[in-house]
Amino acid sequence: MTLHRSAGAGARLALDASGGDLAPLSNVEGAKAFVREYPDSTVVLVGDVDQLAPLVGAQGRGIELVHAPERVEMGEHPSQAVRRKRRSSIRRCFELVSEGKADAVVSAGNSGAVMTAALLVLGRLRGVERPAFAALLPSLRSGGRGGGCLLLDAGANTRCRPSQLAQFAVMGDVYARKVMKVASPRVAVLSNGEEAEKGTELTRDALELLRHSGLNLLGYVEGKDIFSGDVDVVVTDGFTGNVVLKTSEGTASAMAGLLRSAVERAGLSEKLGALLLGPTLTGLKKVVDYAEYGGAPLLGFAGVGIVAHGRSSGKAIKNALRVARETGEAGLQGELERAIVESRRWLRPDSAERT
Amino acid sequence: MTLHRSAGAGARLALDASGGDLAPLSNVEGAKAFVREYPDSTVVLVGDVDQLAPLVGAQGRGIELVHAPERVEMGEHPSQAVRRKRRSSIRRCFELVSEGKADAVVSAGNSGAVMTAALLVLGRLRGVERPAFAALLPSLRSGGRGGGCLLLDAGANTRCRPSQLAQFAVMGDVYARKVMKVASPRVAVLSNGEEAEKGTELTRDALELLRHSGLNLLGYVEGKDIFSGDVDVVVTDGFTGNVVLKTSEGTASAMAGLLRSAVERAGLSEKLGALLLGPTLTGLKKVVDYAEYGGAPLLGFAGVGIVAHGRSSGKAIKNALRVARETGEAGLQGELERAIVESRRWLRPDSAERT
Repeated sequence: MTLHRSAGAGARLALDASGGDLAPLSNVEGAKAFVREYPDSTVVLVGDVDQLAPLVGAQGRGIELVHAPERVEMGEHPSQAVRRKRRSSIRRCFELVSEGKADAVVSAGNSGAVMTAALLVLGRLRGVERPAFAALLPSLRSGGRGGGCLLLDAGANTRCRPSQLAQFAVMGDVYARKVMKVASPRVAVLSNGEEAEKGTELTRDALELLRHSGLNLLGYVEGKDIFSGDVDVVVTDGFTGNVVLKTSEGTASAMAGLLRSAVERAGLSEKLGALLLGPTLTGLKKVVDYAEYGGAPLLGFAGVGIVAHGRSSGKAIKNALRVARETGEAGLQGELERAIVESRRWLRPDSAERT
Repeated sequence: MTLHRSAGAGARLALDASGGDLAPLSNVEGAKAFVREYPDSTVVLVGDVDQLAPLVGAQGRGIELVHAPERVEMGEHPSQAVRRKRRSSIRRCFELVSEGKADAVVSAGNSGAVMTAALLVLGRLRGVERPAFAALLPSLRSGGRGGGCLLLDAGANTRCRPSQLAQFAVMGDVYARKVMKVASPRVAVLSNGEEAEKGTELTRDALELLRHSGLNLLGYVEGKDIFSGDVDVVVTDGFTGNVVLKTSEGTASAMAGLLRSAVERAGLSEKLGALLLGPTLTGLKKVVDYAEYGGAPLLGFAGVGIVAHGRSSGKAIKNALRVARETGEAGLQGELERAIVESRRWLRPDSAERT
């Protein structure tokens, strides 16, 4: 049986205190900031209690500690480490969800480790071939807040089948409706051109399957369309999805860096200009900043999991907790299960793996 | 026999006057601007002479006209149209190169049409499995001028074999040495992570082949590394390359758009700030602007071809002509031929197509 504890008001969120480059300090900081903003919620910090207790200190209202002595280290093979370390913080987090003691998991640890733990402990939602890692990318229209475009798979499954891409579209559509509050999400397959003759065997077959889905299907879109505000859900294989995510991150930080160095080299009037423009430049940075953006949901597991960026600051952790709270609130899991069951009418799993 | 007319001083460049969204006006404008800046060079404008003659007018020094009554229209299937329209401007351009009447071709037309025309008229360099479309992407260090990272294939070959990726690396290395003037180019394969176990069958097999190449091989890089300044040549299949190019373009223009709209909404002090920051903001825009960036070279054909952006302004055309001139100057073709021949020592074409 799948547990559907409702989150939202009174949400209990399990936070992997050992995951992320800045753990456990930023994680504790993020948890504190979150419960200050949402005093009706509880964060269960999962990690080395001896280390965590002094960090949490007296300000601990709304924060509980659960001991997990092991952690997945940076150098380890993530999925092997998760299998071996049965007392690791990330496994314990998902156990809390499966035991009904938490509504959702947030981790800034290695996304491969998070996927493995979710699979081992929660398992997949009934009928889901492959759970996906979804990333919410900013669009011009959304101004980087809410809205944006959901890209999946953003890295969990390097190689995919057409039926898996079609399921990603079904799950993305549900997420866009329930969490992003888009009435009729525009769904598309990522390709190297908009014309039907473009793409690979994978994209063509996925598009063909989706023509029978009843989704609001645009067809193919290109990489630039992701940021245009003209599409809500874009599906692709995890290899390409990872490339999109990293390319976008690289472009944005290169632009921000160039702006910074240009201002440093510039004369007094330009420095004054930068000062006056301060809030706007900060706003721009937010668009590409994971700290503002919160985490990326895992879709297709029998429970809610949110992956935060590995370099998450306290603010990023706080925002990922907020995303977890909203995701739980939306009753996403039940709707995902219904949509996957319903998709069997038009979707038959196929056999050949293609990328 | 392959013709290797040297370009550079006294270069004769064939410009497709009918290619591009703003043709022929921007094309003529770009040609004029180019010959003003490089009075030792000649631009051969290839298109409808009746239409071109009045546009060129009296300022025609350094500009010659060659009549080509047909053009590949936007709605047409590019490669079919090129095959059918034997008197099209893009075919005539490459014929001028094959007849020794021009050193290089510049076109802002559909890149598929340009590839087809190059293949039909010039053919491939001896030993090249698949010519590639290379894109020079800005890096943080280059400041968007020169330098940067060469990405290939950026869209010509949707599906690729490992040996083709390896040849792209060989050709990219030559281009980086001869044109970008990098002494020992750092070459890498694009993947979804830096660890050896990441990637697809294609990327793993390509990397394995390249280990015997003698190139300055970094291994795998991720999408964000393209813009870091830490790598000079990145190889990938044309599907993924197109996605990288379009994602980067989309991210950059979304950021520029957000900045613009934020300044418009802002108060007086921010507007003054934008005014004072003007040159810096313009500099930033240049980084992502094809107009500053010039065109992308086609590598692996028996002649030099440069593809400019479809929305090329006069300035973009001028810069693409400059890239064509520099590319011809560098004696690239002879060196490409030598490198491909030499790569046979470690590279055997394989049979299975993989993406």
